[in-house]
Amino acid sequence: MIVVMRASATQKDIDTILSRLDEYQLQGHLSRGEERTIIGVVGATIPPTLREELELFDGVQEAVRITRPYKLAAREFHPDDTIVDVRGVQVGGHSCVIIAGPCAVETEEQILASARAAREAGATMLRGGAFKPRSSPYTFRGLGEAALKLLALARDETGLPIVTEVMTPTDVPLVARYADLLQIGARNMQNYQLLEEVGRTGMPVLLKRGLSATIEEWLLSAEYVIAQGNPNVILCERGIRTFETATRNTMDLNAVALTKRRSHLPIIADPSHGTGKWYLVPPLALAALAAGADGLIIEIHPDPDRAKSDGGQSLTLENFATLTPRLAAVAAAVGRTLA
Amino acid sequence: MIVVMRASATQKDIDTILSRLDEYQLQGHLSRGEERTIIGVVGATIPPTLREELELFDGVQEAVRITRPYKLAAREFHPDDTIVDVRGVQVGGHSCVIIAGPCAVETEEQILASARAAREAGATMLRGGAFKPRSSPYTFRGLGEAALKLLALARDETGLPIVTEVMTPTDVPLVARYADLLQIGARNMQNYQLLEEVGRTGMPVLLKRGLSATIEEWLLSAEYVIAQGNPNVILCERGIRTFETATRNTMDLNAVALTKRRSHLPIIADPSHGTGKWYLVPPLALAALAAGADGLIIEIHPDPDRAKSDGGQSLTLENFATLTPRLAAVAAAVGRTLA
Amino acid sequence: MIVVMRASATQKDIDTILSRLDEYQLQGHLSRGEERTIIGVVGATIPPTLREELELFDGVQEAVRITRPYKLAAREFHPDDTIVDVRGVQVGGHSCVIIAGPCAVETEEQILASARAAREAGATMLRGGAFKPRSSPYTFRGLGEAALKLLALARDETGLPIVTEVMTPTDVPLVARYADLLQIGARNMQNYQLLEEVGRTGMPVLLKRGLSATIEEWLLSAEYVIAQGNPNVILCERGIRTFETATRNTMDLNAVALTKRRSHLPIIADPSHGTGKWYLVPPLALAALAAGADGLIIEIHPDPDRAKSDGGQSLTLENFATLTPRLAAVAAAVGRTLA
Amino acid sequence: MIVVMRASATQKDIDTILSRLDEYQLQGHLSRGEERTIIGVVGATIPPTLREELELFDGVQEAVRITRPYKLAAREFHPDDTIVDVRGVQVGGHSCVIIAGPCAVETEEQILASARAAREAGATMLRGGAFKPRSSPYTFRGLGEAALKLLALARDETGLPIVTEVMTPTDVPLVARYADLLQIGARNMQNYQLLEEVGRTGMPVLLKRGLSATIEEWLLSAEYVIAQGNPNVILCERGIRTFETATRNTMDLNAVALTKRRSHLPIIADPSHGTGKWYLVPPLALAALAAGADGLIIEIHPDPDRAKSDGGQSLTLENFATLTPRLAAVAAAVGRTLA
Repeated sequence: MIVVMRASATQKDIDTILSRLDEYQLQGHLSRGEERTIIGVVGATIPPTLREELELFDGVQEAVRITRPYKLAAREFHPDDTIVDVRGVQVGGHSCVIIAGPCAVETEEQILASARAAREAGATMLRGGAFKPRSSPYTFRGLGEAALKLLALARDETGLPIVTEVMTPTDVPLVARYADLLQIGARNMQNYQLLEEVGRTGMPVLLKRGLSATIEEWLLSAEYVIAQGNPNVILCERGIRTFETATRNTMDLNAVALTKRRSHLPIIADPSHGTGKWYLVPPLALAALAAGADGLIIEIHPDPDRAKSDGGQSLTLENFATLTPRLAAVAAAVGRTLA
Repeated sequence: MIVVMRASATQKDIDTILSRLDEYQLQGHLSRGEERTIIGVVGATIPPTLREELELFDGVQEAVRITRPYKLAAREFHPDDTIVDVRGVQVGGHSCVIIAGPCAVETEEQILASARAAREAGATMLRGGAFKPRSSPYTFRGLGEAALKLLALARDETGLPIVTEVMTPTDVPLVARYADLLQIGARNMQNYQLLEEVGRTGMPVLLKRGLSATIEEWLLSAEYVIAQGNPNVILCERGIRTFETATRNTMDLNAVALTKRRSHLPIIADPSHGTGKWYLVPPLALAALAAGADGLIIEIHPDPDRAKSDGGQSLTLENFATLTPRLAAVAAAVGRTLA
Repeated sequence: MIVVMRASATQKDIDTILSRLDEYQLQGHLSRGEERTIIGVVGATIPPTLREELELFDGVQEAVRITRPYKLAAREFHPDDTIVDVRGVQVGGHSCVIIAGPCAVETEEQILASARAAREAGATMLRGGAFKPRSSPYTFRGLGEAALKLLALARDETGLPIVTEVMTPTDVPLVARYADLLQIGARNMQNYQLLEEVGRTGMPVLLKRGLSATIEEWLLSAEYVIAQGNPNVILCERGIRTFETATRNTMDLNAVALTKRRSHLPIIADPSHGTGKWYLVPPLALAALAAGADGLIIEIHPDPDRAKSDGGQSLTLENFATLTPRLAAVAAAVGRTLA
Repeated sequence: MIVVMRASATQKDIDTILSRLDEYQLQGHLSRGEERTIIGVVGATIPPTLREELELFDGVQEAVRITRPYKLAAREFHPDDTIVDVRGVQVGGHSCVIIAGPCAVETEEQILASARAAREAGATMLRGGAFKPRSSPYTFRGLGEAALKLLALARDETGLPIVTEVMTPTDVPLVARYADLLQIGARNMQNYQLLEEVGRTGMPVLLKRGLSATIEEWLLSAEYVIAQGNPNVILCERGIRTFETATRNTMDLNAVALTKRRSHLPIIADPSHGTGKWYLVPPLALAALAAGADGLIIEIHPDPDRAKSDGGQSLTLENFATLTPRLAAVAAAVGRTLA
């Protein structure tokens, strides 16, 4: 923490800051410049609210935090990549994982057809929504436990581990009974009770970035999970909200590359939500791998025209099958493989 | 719904759309232009996902929705202003309400001092956080039920109804036992289980706008509450996230004025979170009333320098006391009064 | 400037920074904390690019600038409000100014009718576009010098000073011959040659905020004008671009209040462009004055239905006449008057 | 254009619209639904302002435009890819181009060293700023014509065509005398006089996307150039401004992929400005090619630590040399080559 005093600050203003720091058992190192004085704050534990507190004092221009507010998720304190094991599939290592499946589980035929096509095309995990967050109360919200059972059936047949969203803390035990990887959706990135609840399961967690969450806030949400003793967090960039409306969201691949530096956690990308248009999914899927993503999660559907949700951004099974060899080629070009 | 065909669409493309509409018992009215054909879709019930579905068909350029997706919250179907009664305080009528109190309840002295000062200065409701959503797991998260009891004590003494946030569905019964107005925070605006749970209580609900929620999404979230048979929703604009970082958020007073037209629900403004700086609270509070807000919610604290959260955006009790007469003057200038 | 070293920085890393500072005749004050070392940089002149330069060195986590990059526009170095005189109309003093007129000058009848109505309703300046920046090359771009002559005619008749936009440096002499206040449009806020050219005229300049310009960038653009020896800059908030599409732009009244603190320059607001909808102009105009704006610029038109541009956001002359008394009431409520 | 009437619209409202359309020699096709009536507007030429005009009429809920406002830039009317020839280098064909060079030309040694390293590493064009737009009036703004001469010298030696920015219409003849590709910077994307002036030269133009420009606005700016009879426009995505501040801008690779569909113009990407951090340039450069970009423009510098501008986002010559083989590998993986 650094406290920048105003040009007009008096010695009394400075002394007030120093004595306040003293109350917290912190030390203040003065640096007097031509125009103004700077106070460097040092000590074992700086209270998280100190910054805004100090900015209230007379003579203070601003207080600047200099350490990142997350620790467990930071690469600085954990230099090696974390590899998360999802029922035998490694996420975060040399191989990139491809997760595919429909937005929502609709019928046994639909999920089985999707799972078979996913596996044949080279996917190593199956996605499918059982509980769907929807902006409107009048739209399809998923089949609930029936969908979980169908996902388990698909796993039995194909061997693919399954990932599905859990939306509320009380549903965690139910969803955890079926899922191999618990998804926290973008709208719930800052649902702290939910983060702690999935943290307590010890199971792998797929943490989607919130629609307008900064990278720092996202890693703080990961910190909530890890702080429960659960290091198995996989981050997922899925597009942010910007002024551009020609695409559903704006894929932020800067965030993929930067997060790989700032954190040891694996990170995958979701070009389906990131673009909102099926025909943009292939180029952005390729781009995400090139940017260093550890994998992809892609919506596919046997009949997107009749999908109950997100049909417009789902690939047909055929289109998905033609995409995976191209993904493998780009993965190879950046020195990796598909799982 | 209107379906705009591409210039290159064939008659077969058009027929496919028409027969698909027929499956849904909808009619398509053709309008053939010089360059392209438009199909107007009419019928009793248009499925919410029809738009994205139709855009998948060959020959379709885009499908455009022409009715708003919310009904219960829309002024079009409910022209008169809704007035919500919070333990005798009317929100949404001729008088503007002022809600004041600390960000978080910290001690009995703090909340009682705040409540007394709030009442004396003319506030008609008391705010105070018992459960606090915090970006970092390492910061103060509120006193929980102990805080609720202190709020009830402050209500007993001052007569002010109390508003406090509830963060998760399982806490709703507990919070509802104490609170007069249940607050849904910005991070939870799309926590649908929570919306439905507070909807089921029938109690007044204060629904804050999400950090990057459109006005339409916000009204859809209100729709979730009203659809449970609970029309007592008060909207609260509290700033949106934009590129500007000089202020914590960007107060969107356009949204206050537009929402008054689009919806019959009362709307208040939160200049404390909307600006993040105590010295910007007075000008933005005045501006919000001038823009047509039905009230304000303002953070005050007996000693902002030592507040456990949001000290930087809290007014001192003295500053609040000098603000309320100015608010009354602006309310009068736009033909209203303070409650 | 403060340089924050990484936890892993070596003494050699620190020495490298110190010797680099020495090359610039700057001094580095060390502050060694438990986890890391901070270097406070002091000296007479810190190069503007020093920050990004230092961040390239090994061992540096970040460099933080602690003084604002503008001086001439900063209140810190010029505590008193600047008052700009536009042909006898004072902008920035106790009285708020109202500028009204059509988006574009179309005909003599139109501009004269607008000017008369503006004056009768209490406006003290006339606006009207002669050169119009338009996103599409296929739309009406203004009448050019013919429009300037019509504006001068309207000034002769009504006595109202005139404000009109200049879009390119070579047009400055022409426009300056007619106008009393030179407008720099939002798209040109960072057209530096244009800023310097209007700076050199010494005439009053109305500097609109760019669509996605931060407050700091805006004040830096003002600095470009003032640095030419022309202190007569009036800032104009006209809405920023955000994710919200229900309104044309998002009026940022936080910026109005904050800029009044950060700068001594007068600031007015443009609710016509800030909202894009005529029916939102009155509430946002009232709000802007309540937030502390020194005036307003409002689009009016004798027949908005047939306006060649921006009809949708123009008030009729009748609506404008009913608005001004309401503006006067809010101005009075915040201790000011209309000019 | 489609006009959606309100549920409450009367027959008189509808007739008013129809007669207004008639004034413009347009026809209105009625489509009467259960709840409301829709009017499809057809005719040879729909005035660009018709939409906002119609929305002013009683009974109109909204008017929706259904054709894109640009024609010359649209793929719909020009299905084949445009290939722009820049002094023998083809942009937009099968091969991807790499443009490299320093942000600003500083000295003969610097630009020659950069040019040689660029050519050796496989770049096919040289960039270098002679006129630099800078937010602050107190920073280095380029060497002007002296820099242009140095660029020409570097071209003479290496054979690389040169690209450099022109900032104001009066500088176009000067810059055009030296440059092979005229760059329009992000801040000038809507400087229409400048667009028309470079349009009139007939020379290749590199049109950077504005900081907060939509794809549609960007293509409209291209339209300004093409409308002068100059089809040689190369688009350049260089990051947009969003709420995220951890990177300088947010690279929008969705825009790269979508623009390839919407327009026939070649598009390249600028990962230096798009990220603002040299260590993010390689992953985003790879990603841009994978997303379908026709090339890259990358800042390199012999000594980024001492660069006069943008050092923090410049690659060293060594880092650039290690990047190009990786770019070639990704280009090959998506079926293309480096030029």
